[in-house]
Amino acid sequence: MAKVKKTPRPKAETPKGFRDYFGTEVTERTEMLAKIAAVYHRYGFEALESSAVETVEALGKFLPDVDRPNEGVFAWQEFDEKDNGDWLALRYDLTAPLARVYAQHRNDLPTPYRRFAMGPVWRNEKPGPGRFRQFYQCDADTVGSASVAADAEICAMLSDCLEEVGIPRGDYIIRVNNRKVLNGVLEAMGVTDEAQAADVLRTIDKFDKVGEEGVRQLLGKGRLDASGAYIDGVGLDEAQAEPVLAFLTSKGETVSETLANLRAAVGGSAVGAEGVDELEEIASLLEAQGYGADRIVIDPSVVRGLGYYTGPVFEAELTFEILDEKGRKRQFGSVSGGGRYDGLVKRFTGQEVPATGISIGVDRLLAALHAKGRLGGNAEGPVVVTVMDKARMADYQAIVGELRREGIRAEVYLGNPKNFGNQLKYADKRNSPIAVIEGEDEKARGVVQLKDLILGAKIAENATLEEWKERPSQFEVPRDQMVAKIHEILASQSAPDGEGA
Amino acid sequence: MAKVKKTPRPKAETPKGFRDYFGTEVTERTEMLAKIAAVYHRYGFEALESSAVETVEALGKFLPDVDRPNEGVFAWQEFDEKDNGDWLALRYDLTAPLARVYAQHRNDLPTPYRRFAMGPVWRNEKPGPGRFRQFYQCDADTVGSASVAADAEICAMLSDCLEEVGIPRGDYIIRVNNRKVLNGVLEAMGVTDEAQAADVLRTIDKFDKVGEEGVRQLLGKGRLDASGAYIDGVGLDEAQAEPVLAFLTSKGETVSETLANLRAAVGGSAVGAEGVDELEEIASLLEAQGYGADRIVIDPSVVRGLGYYTGPVFEAELTFEILDEKGRKRQFGSVSGGGRYDGLVKRFTGQEVPATGISIGVDRLLAALHAKGRLGGNAEGPVVVTVMDKARMADYQAIVGELRREGIRAEVYLGNPKNFGNQLKYADKRNSPIAVIEGEDEKARGVVQLKDLILGAKIAENATLEEWKERPSQFEVPRDQMVAKIHEILASQSAPDGEGA
Repeated sequence: MAKVKKTPRPKAETPKGFRDYFGTEVTERTEMLAKIAAVYHRYGFEALESSAVETVEALGKFLPDVDRPNEGVFAWQEFDEKDNGDWLALRYDLTAPLARVYAQHRNDLPTPYRRFAMGPVWRNEKPGPGRFRQFYQCDADTVGSASVAADAEICAMLSDCLEEVGIPRGDYIIRVNNRKVLNGVLEAMGVTDEAQAADVLRTIDKFDKVGEEGVRQLLGKGRLDASGAYIDGVGLDEAQAEPVLAFLTSKGETVSETLANLRAAVGGSAVGAEGVDELEEIASLLEAQGYGADRIVIDPSVVRGLGYYTGPVFEAELTFEILDEKGRKRQFGSVSGGGRYDGLVKRFTGQEVPATGISIGVDRLLAALHAKGRLGGNAEGPVVVTVMDKARMADYQAIVGELRREGIRAEVYLGNPKNFGNQLKYADKRNSPIAVIEGEDEKARGVVQLKDLILGAKIAENATLEEWKERPSQFEVPRDQMVAKIHEILASQSAPDGEGA
Repeated sequence: MAKVKKTPRPKAETPKGFRDYFGTEVTERTEMLAKIAAVYHRYGFEALESSAVETVEALGKFLPDVDRPNEGVFAWQEFDEKDNGDWLALRYDLTAPLARVYAQHRNDLPTPYRRFAMGPVWRNEKPGPGRFRQFYQCDADTVGSASVAADAEICAMLSDCLEEVGIPRGDYIIRVNNRKVLNGVLEAMGVTDEAQAADVLRTIDKFDKVGEEGVRQLLGKGRLDASGAYIDGVGLDEAQAEPVLAFLTSKGETVSETLANLRAAVGGSAVGAEGVDELEEIASLLEAQGYGADRIVIDPSVVRGLGYYTGPVFEAELTFEILDEKGRKRQFGSVSGGGRYDGLVKRFTGQEVPATGISIGVDRLLAALHAKGRLGGNAEGPVVVTVMDKARMADYQAIVGELRREGIRAEVYLGNPKNFGNQLKYADKRNSPIAVIEGEDEKARGVVQLKDLILGAKIAENATLEEWKERPSQFEVPRDQMVAKIHEILASQSAPDGEGA
């Protein structure tokens, strides 16, 4: 006879590819978003928060590299008695919702419409190490302006944002390229077939990985890759491939040199010349605002996004080296990208609406600041008021209330107070700077004991150093001087080592 | 012959029950969340951000008033070749994810674990006017402390939060009740049958609506409601119903009077006495911190949530009157609720873990501040630098760059500059305080024109007032005094009416 099965307990697990963020992981991100929002706001951009859920119809299938509808998004069908409900999905980025918002509210919005948006987006992808299916984006876009001044402004703003969050000048570079120049190059090459143009685009996307010679081979007959597999080439003849390579390697010592190289690469193409003119104007508008080549450069070797965007393309890269998980030095790499795109609003309205914008990868930026040691110190926990006498909880509440009114982060120990050691272990786990102790004796004498837990930990670590041993880490103070003494201890803890206490 | 149908354009619409938030709608909420987070943090609570997506298994079916699994949530099945993928869902509140997080990470978290969380939650409900399927919650909970000091602390913190976001003392009241007292009352009544107890609970839930006499009828034989329908009663005899009514109406002039009434209502019930003791201790702990009955009161008429919580129950109500959509005065009502609950973590671990917390309805609070005129003035737009000469865009970029470096919110007009009137219309739509104008003539003379748009609008409105007419709203200043003059105009605009300019 089979036993009656009990309902098994639910597993306490995040779904695969999702994670929880604790304490400073949350507050550091919140602070970074606030700093970026302040820059965006100063540039005249307005906040927009659209809902996380959109109709699949409105989202379209604009997720790069995804061919099947709904692939790449989390989607479900609305309940409907006739099984005819709308398909809804979580947004996969902040740009597709912007296009929907602009199309929906265009009569009420100013034109041009500068907006910023920040929040989580979701991708229904196979999760992997460090790859999450929910992550933050932080975007700014200008909709309804065809002027390259809008593109230049976005680049300047991106530069300000990076410096505002703590990446100093010299530790980053913003590179600008232009899809129109590439179109001009394709024209100069005589590549008119769309499929062949797409092949060329796919090939130059590998420029970062395989370099100039690799691209040359892949544009021609093909190439043996590192794994030993032979990759078929696009089949262009050598001369035909030259303009693309000239384009990719056209960066000169100065802006004017780069522009001259590009003009040569596009030959007689009108759209190519227009693209080069745009890059020239962007450089000059940035120069007028004081953004020189130490911050923003014209760099045709930037290929990421060239397939997606229709005009200028931007990428911000951090240029300092970090150690990767295997201890090897490598450049930190890209933290933001963007560019000009046209088709998104047209899907809804039939009218082409020019737009340009960027997305800042805040999680990558936070990781960069951690790698450089500019974030991620031990966050200070609360002052912990210990409970020596359970019956006198009201006294401890009065103490903690007083501390909080003085702006001091503080809490009463609310676990079982029986074992005092557990209370100190708790304070340690909370990274508490100070424990307040008021036993029966202290209460009678009108005093409290203050334990400097940071100094105490240092003394414990450096037990051989006589000078540390001699410094007291516990103080008895009159109850009415408690707040002042706590302020003093907190100040000494935040002073540089050796000057404390 | 049928025509070939074109793919119709997607509709630019939010899904039903969702909406977009623009500009100050977003920033006012962000600021409110930051203020509440600062209070939570000062009380020793740590930030937690769990993912929006949970397994349906982990969420369980704890959404109140929902019987069928998945009802009330947005859920979908993970893709899996064998059609055996997990069911995932959007979180419907922040408490269910907390239970999962605590069960999953309990070995790494301090006990007690004080955490706060803020973010959107989603409910798959029929949308209605003013009812949205995505809205913000802003929670704080203490997990792992059975002490009523944890409950008292939550009430004090809620009071601080309300004052911090701009609800002055006297405009709100926090009411505290206790489920254990009600359990004691049921015991005193001799109601031991669970189904009958549930009937009584459902009935007292209507106390807010039908009042004392209505509840008396519904506990007995039943009642003719306003629509003329007869509602069957629980079927208690009159004497049996008395303790519940005594409980609901036990609030006295003072705390001790209320407590005495409650002690009478629970008769000899042990759990009832425990409940009254808890309320007494909460009142005394709050008193010790200076939170008197002007902020937090013991009030057994609070019935919302009594069915869900297992111990103390809290509710914050705004006590001022507002005008509803029909122009009638009414009290604003509840903006936060919470209480003590036990079963949530037990689902995962088998161990009962006590927990208590609150959820603040930030959207309701924002609405309250708007209704009182304490939020929602016209947000200041950016200074708009107009474009008089398209070829001199670099000059305008230099101007706007200078303003931004001085911390002044500013932008260049990026639409088609041909029609100057459109540029001023745009500045108006953007709620711009000042327009900067630098035509060929100004450029040659080294000056700019500054148009005070706020003063200009006032003059236009008050055309009959000679004093306004005489005051200039446009100023010519040397280019190198532009920033100083703009600062001066902005300062005059934010000065009280009549003192400006």
